[in-house]
Amino acid sequence: MTAIDINCDMGESFGNWQMGNDEGVMPYITSANIAGGYHAGDPHVMRETVELAAEHDVGIGVHPGLPDKMGFGRRTMDATPEELRDYVVYQLGALMGFARRHGASVQHVKPHGAMYSMLSDSDEHARAVMEGMLEVDPDLIYLATDMNIYEVARDVEGLQAVFEGYIDLDYRADRSLIVEKQVGDRDPSLVADRFVSIATEGVVEAANGEQIDIPADSICIHGDNPNAVAILEEIHDRLEDNDIELASLPEVV
Amino acid sequence: MTAIDINCDMGESFGNWQMGNDEGVMPYITSANIAGGYHAGDPHVMRETVELAAEHDVGIGVHPGLPDKMGFGRRTMDATPEELRDYVVYQLGALMGFARRHGASVQHVKPHGAMYSMLSDSDEHARAVMEGMLEVDPDLIYLATDMNIYEVARDVEGLQAVFEGYIDLDYRADRSLIVEKQVGDRDPSLVADRFVSIATEGVVEAANGEQIDIPADSICIHGDNPNAVAILEEIHDRLEDNDIELASLPEVV
Amino acid sequence: MTAIDINCDMGESFGNWQMGNDEGVMPYITSANIAGGYHAGDPHVMRETVELAAEHDVGIGVHPGLPDKMGFGRRTMDATPEELRDYVVYQLGALMGFARRHGASVQHVKPHGAMYSMLSDSDEHARAVMEGMLEVDPDLIYLATDMNIYEVARDVEGLQAVFEGYIDLDYRADRSLIVEKQVGDRDPSLVADRFVSIATEGVVEAANGEQIDIPADSICIHGDNPNAVAILEEIHDRLEDNDIELASLPEVV
Amino acid sequence: MTAIDINCDMGESFGNWQMGNDEGVMPYITSANIAGGYHAGDPHVMRETVELAAEHDVGIGVHPGLPDKMGFGRRTMDATPEELRDYVVYQLGALMGFARRHGASVQHVKPHGAMYSMLSDSDEHARAVMEGMLEVDPDLIYLATDMNIYEVARDVEGLQAVFEGYIDLDYRADRSLIVEKQVGDRDPSLVADRFVSIATEGVVEAANGEQIDIPADSICIHGDNPNAVAILEEIHDRLEDNDIELASLPEVV
Repeated sequence: MTAIDINCDMGESFGNWQMGNDEGVMPYITSANIAGGYHAGDPHVMRETVELAAEHDVGIGVHPGLPDKMGFGRRTMDATPEELRDYVVYQLGALMGFARRHGASVQHVKPHGAMYSMLSDSDEHARAVMEGMLEVDPDLIYLATDMNIYEVARDVEGLQAVFEGYIDLDYRADRSLIVEKQVGDRDPSLVADRFVSIATEGVVEAANGEQIDIPADSICIHGDNPNAVAILEEIHDRLEDNDIELASLPEVV
Repeated sequence: MTAIDINCDMGESFGNWQMGNDEGVMPYITSANIAGGYHAGDPHVMRETVELAAEHDVGIGVHPGLPDKMGFGRRTMDATPEELRDYVVYQLGALMGFARRHGASVQHVKPHGAMYSMLSDSDEHARAVMEGMLEVDPDLIYLATDMNIYEVARDVEGLQAVFEGYIDLDYRADRSLIVEKQVGDRDPSLVADRFVSIATEGVVEAANGEQIDIPADSICIHGDNPNAVAILEEIHDRLEDNDIELASLPEVV
Repeated sequence: MTAIDINCDMGESFGNWQMGNDEGVMPYITSANIAGGYHAGDPHVMRETVELAAEHDVGIGVHPGLPDKMGFGRRTMDATPEELRDYVVYQLGALMGFARRHGASVQHVKPHGAMYSMLSDSDEHARAVMEGMLEVDPDLIYLATDMNIYEVARDVEGLQAVFEGYIDLDYRADRSLIVEKQVGDRDPSLVADRFVSIATEGVVEAANGEQIDIPADSICIHGDNPNAVAILEEIHDRLEDNDIELASLPEVV
Repeated sequence: MTAIDINCDMGESFGNWQMGNDEGVMPYITSANIAGGYHAGDPHVMRETVELAAEHDVGIGVHPGLPDKMGFGRRTMDATPEELRDYVVYQLGALMGFARRHGASVQHVKPHGAMYSMLSDSDEHARAVMEGMLEVDPDLIYLATDMNIYEVARDVEGLQAVFEGYIDLDYRADRSLIVEKQVGDRDPSLVADRFVSIATEGVVEAANGEQIDIPADSICIHGDNPNAVAILEEIHDRLEDNDIELASLPEVV
């Protein structure tokens, strides 16, 4: 039996503006990365998303971003390690507030967009954020989007980290992701094949046909993919035959 | 021996803009009401203010405001009880994040400006905020600025509340406060007289000369008063002779 | 031949968040009320919306709101007349910047949501905003959403005002509008009937069946109505047979 | 007789937070660079600053910044040329609104902090902003802070540009400025010497003692310098003896 987590970015609506399909996706995942009100989300959206996660017994994580709603947190900025750490502590704490209302706790941290890129590009920034989150709660898990950052995380004393893989995007042979401007429909069957391949063998086929190692204990699904629910249903249909069970981050770490 | 708390609004700088005199005032108080990033404050200011409070062993509370930096949270808005509760949970949680970095906890909640007025004017709004804070942490104390809100707080099951008095503003005979546009110098000796009077007898002289009851277990000092430090020094000089000791909110509740 | 203007709120997307169907609706209208970046919109959205309006020869107006993106400018706040005036001047000027890039000018002002309500409720606030817009440009037209505000506008010396009618919402017999939480599909044929009725006779049937006077020279269409384009097509199909021509606000004022 | 302009950044207060000493400085300068509400300023501050400038017959310019109040617009961000242009058009237009209320016009553009650095580092970004401002008003003058950007500006067809010198900061021999974290007192006599030297001879002594060319037609004074007013008084005292007259940007361009 192989255990794997499925995570998805959630709570990226803001005020009257809707984004994603949180209600459709939540029943199928095990970890929700909830926006902390900086690049997206607001207190009402956070509360509702925490309620939805609690209802479906989905693990709650924070998806902190840069203070740049106009750019959806996708523009790197010349901020110091301490500034990033403080932004993460702020958004993490805020989400803890909502989680505690449900007797739940925040279990993981996965930085968003340009904040993630900044951590991946600078060990000093990454370490500041990781040490900051440990100071808030030593049980928090860092959900690592690439190998660079995964290795930095494993070097931080006391920090638990999980590496995540992608199945609705293509990998290059060097394990970097081919990110598309516009999220389009993906063949659920193909995406589910990749899910099984990563979950059971830790490998996936890159865009050039090469088999590459993706030693992931969590799989990220893009909830704003137009057929995200169809993909998730197809994945769930494959679980039993492939001896895969879905598990929360604390179980797979 | 009489025990009383001294609280002060803190952390109301924002980015490059300075406000107040937190470093001067912190050594003399027992409770800091720290802005939560909505009407004032930001993650860096919050972190620094928490550090300063921890250093002086001052109790940490959140001073949540409306999302209106341009108006410094002083303009009431037509927000629902649920919206206010969510704003408080967000800011309270965020401050908890910084407090935990110091092994400290947030001990009280004191809403700012127009948010306070909205709670005082609507029991439904007040109750929503108070129940929300209890759901986050049942040990939190509500610091009540007027009798209306103090009575609502005492009606909320499980909620601890402390009533606060003012000494650097004048009271009307009906126990309402005469708020001035511009904070001016106050005679430290007169202000300290009032401190002793409220602390030891629970009374103060109103603007019309009448003695009125102020059954306060905490005294609020305005840190942006130009001679706040001189006032606080004078107060400290009076403690011993009047058998008053300063105590934290959990001790006086 | 009767001349009438059709106006629609536009440019209410923000950053990555989409709202409305500006590209579908723009070809059918004569006046665009473009959000000024406070309740909705941002510089990029404003530029694109101005470009779209210029392309379809649609008159450009500003749709200024309160500084409350989280509440989409729908919550009244205790702001002074001068504050509202300054918010309008700021957003109006900003839109003028984009209009001038196309050799166009801003022709009208129509306040949004709670700002509109505040003007309707307080002549002093309304007058401050109207005088402020005249000081910026004496040719600006105020697009009035109810009779109260239309009468205040006509009292302001030198100000041109146009009264607008609604056809995708129901009127009460007292000429107030029945606003629905959720915009739903409307029968295009029924809505077009009302358009013709207001345009040619200045009357419409209220919810209770009574005929009421709506002396409107402009008709407001809700662009976020799911079948707004179908409604607009139906309206355009009726123009010739009913001797109605669409005209810009300066032509109908 | 030599003519030179004196410019100063103005209107950098925000809401209740004060910055600078606009009232003290305005009587002594000829051009005000007024913050546009992004890195600093707000509609009320902009209105008051325009009023103060109009009262002292000081030329009005916009000082546009990045949308980053928390970082005071001092952190570069990965924004496109078009994004910067749109931010400038927005803030420039907004200020035009307030200027028109006084029958005045905006005469120049001087980008703030990190936005200025981004333009200096990328000709493409600089050109986008400069062409954007020309599209809004072909009479606008670009106030150039370094030689790079001055040369780009002179290459943009139809754009007028003025180069500015600094006298309350030290130059390195390569004409770059030694920027200090904390603005401190400057000897007014020394600063006034530099003013006269740049105004009459176009040279100044660098930190290493070398004489360097500063062909400036405007001098920037830091209004947040604690003795800015004393410096400006000293400068005014030197004008007559040195045959220098103060002139507005359109006169020195």
